Amino acid sequence: MADVDVVVGIDLGGTKILTVAATPDGRILARKRVATPQGRDAVVAAMRDTVAAVLGEVGAAVPRAIGVGAPGPMDPVAGILLEPPNLPGCANLPLAAIFRQLYPDAGIHVENDANAAALGERRFGAGRGVDDLCYVTISTGIGGGIVAAGRLVRGAAGTGGEVGHTVLAPDGPECHCGLHGCWEVLSSGTAIARAAEAAVARGEGAAIRAAAGSGPVDARAVDQAAAAGDPAALRIVAAAVRYNGIGFCNLIQVLSPARIIVGGGVSRAWDRYIAPAAAWAKRHAFARPGGMCAIVPADLGDDVGALGAVAVGLGDAEAS
Amino acid sequence: MADVDVVVGIDLGGTKILTVAATPDGRILARKRVATPQGRDAVVAAMRDTVAAVLGEVGAAVPRAIGVGAPGPMDPVAGILLEPPNLPGCANLPLAAIFRQLYPDAGIHVENDANAAALGERRFGAGRGVDDLCYVTISTGIGGGIVAAGRLVRGAAGTGGEVGHTVLAPDGPECHCGLHGCWEVLSSGTAIARAAEAAVARGEGAAIRAAAGSGPVDARAVDQAAAAGDPAALRIVAAAVRYNGIGFCNLIQVLSPARIIVGGGVSRAWDRYIAPAAAWAKRHAFARPGGMCAIVPADLGDDVGALGAVAVGLGDAEAS
Repeated sequence: MADVDVVVGIDLGGTKILTVAATPDGRILARKRVATPQGRDAVVAAMRDTVAAVLGEVGAAVPRAIGVGAPGPMDPVAGILLEPPNLPGCANLPLAAIFRQLYPDAGIHVENDANAAALGERRFGAGRGVDDLCYVTISTGIGGGIVAAGRLVRGAAGTGGEVGHTVLAPDGPECHCGLHGCWEVLSSGTAIARAAEAAVARGEGAAIRAAAGSGPVDARAVDQAAAAGDPAALRIVAAAVRYNGIGFCNLIQVLSPARIIVGGGVSRAWDRYIAPAAAWAKRHAFARPGGMCAIVPADLGDDVGALGAVAVGLGDAEAS
Repeated sequence: MADVDVVVGIDLGGTKILTVAATPDGRILARKRVATPQGRDAVVAAMRDTVAAVLGEVGAAVPRAIGVGAPGPMDPVAGILLEPPNLPGCANLPLAAIFRQLYPDAGIHVENDANAAALGERRFGAGRGVDDLCYVTISTGIGGGIVAAGRLVRGAAGTGGEVGHTVLAPDGPECHCGLHGCWEVLSSGTAIARAAEAAVARGEGAAIRAAAGSGPVDARAVDQAAAAGDPAALRIVAAAVRYNGIGFCNLIQVLSPARIIVGGGVSRAWDRYIAPAAAWAKRHAFARPGGMCAIVPADLGDDVGALGAVAVGLGDAEAS
């Protein structure tokens, strides 16, 4: 068995598990992706098997460390999942203890997925060397992770960074979280799709419907219809931009990050949904923190979860 | 000259300078309060004289440290005021360098006033031993300071904690900061007084006017009229409570503080303006961080600025 210095990162999601073996500087040497199975024991077995597979592929018996990024809520200090709605059957799953038993000589750390992504971008991606940053993912939902003064902001409950569920418009629609007018219900990919479907239902969405082709009436279809000047699409875009702008602005006021790193599917249409919101936020926040904040695209793409887990494995989530 | 171990804290405000000499555990041994004079040289001279006065009173030639809490914006690392609107003529004032020259053997630190207050409450008041806290002052304006993972959240621009200028209702009135519907313009003491004056002007404010007596139609008068069941006062209170609740809730979602410490004049009517907002926030935030956050009154009263400056002098604002 070769003596290879690798860190394993496990991106545990509701639909897939992506496990990588990487060098400590973030070069991925092996990856294994499987669909997330149903049930507690099956999830643990699948995680274990993917770890063994990537270690086998690189010829390492024991990794330096294993990091897991998993859906919240969790207790990251104890490394226990609590009752993650996206992983039914996994309540109170003691992931850290399980992997510590399997690999007693490796450092084991568990963190929530959005925080892991923030740490991944900080160590390997768009936030390298930055001590004050926010990572925001705008996808079906809106999540985030915050690093302030060089430390991950876990907060007392380990839930720090839930920027998507801050209220930006209290008379807005109700979110599944119970709040009215939180950022997620106003301008996530789901919110954009909902607005597009409503436009179609009202008979105003022909251009969006056509742009979608045989696919869903979603943020991408709205982007394309807006590019062609469709008024209904432009209205939907304007609403999403408005609330993204307020969301970014509020982060600048509260945290004065040097960088806001934006990822997630909606951010792929950067010039449509993000760039004008970023400009608005920088102009409306206080001049000094607005001027000192760069709002930039995430850098790690689909590997952000796994590389974030590698950063977690390296201990980046712990106060230092 | 006796060898007394003292720390000097200077609370530099737009209307007064309060300087104290305190033991490192926060017992105030001497205090000197003067009105803030006009102009750069006069401000520096007044600060210098108050320091000499409190040191003379306790019989110390040189303090262990001097801390200053001053209005922003500033560069806290360099210890330079930038262009504080509340201190005309003090642009680019290098306070740290000035006091370093006067007391070369003392540690000198400068921090913005709201951050200093947060550190004061953390070291000496309602936040003792707490690593994740928000301090919010609800007074004529709304300001704040944040400690996350044991570190002050200064952010890249040193302006972290400007919670009062986060947007909570984008169709709300315009604030002097340029934003529409920020927390400060919705439920500060000034906002409550403005709403009360509008009620009086509309002929609905007789009870508030009467409660004010010969004083101003302000948050205290509204509190008293509300206590007597006046409908106009109750409507004004309900609006303030609504936005305080959203403000607290957003802080819980983003930061998961173990404690939100609320000070400022409006918070003196705790049961009216704060308690129902705190209950709403804890109920509407995610269950775990909501349940783990206590929302409590500030503890240091009118000394919060000076004792905050003492904490700053002791180096609490620096990352460690």
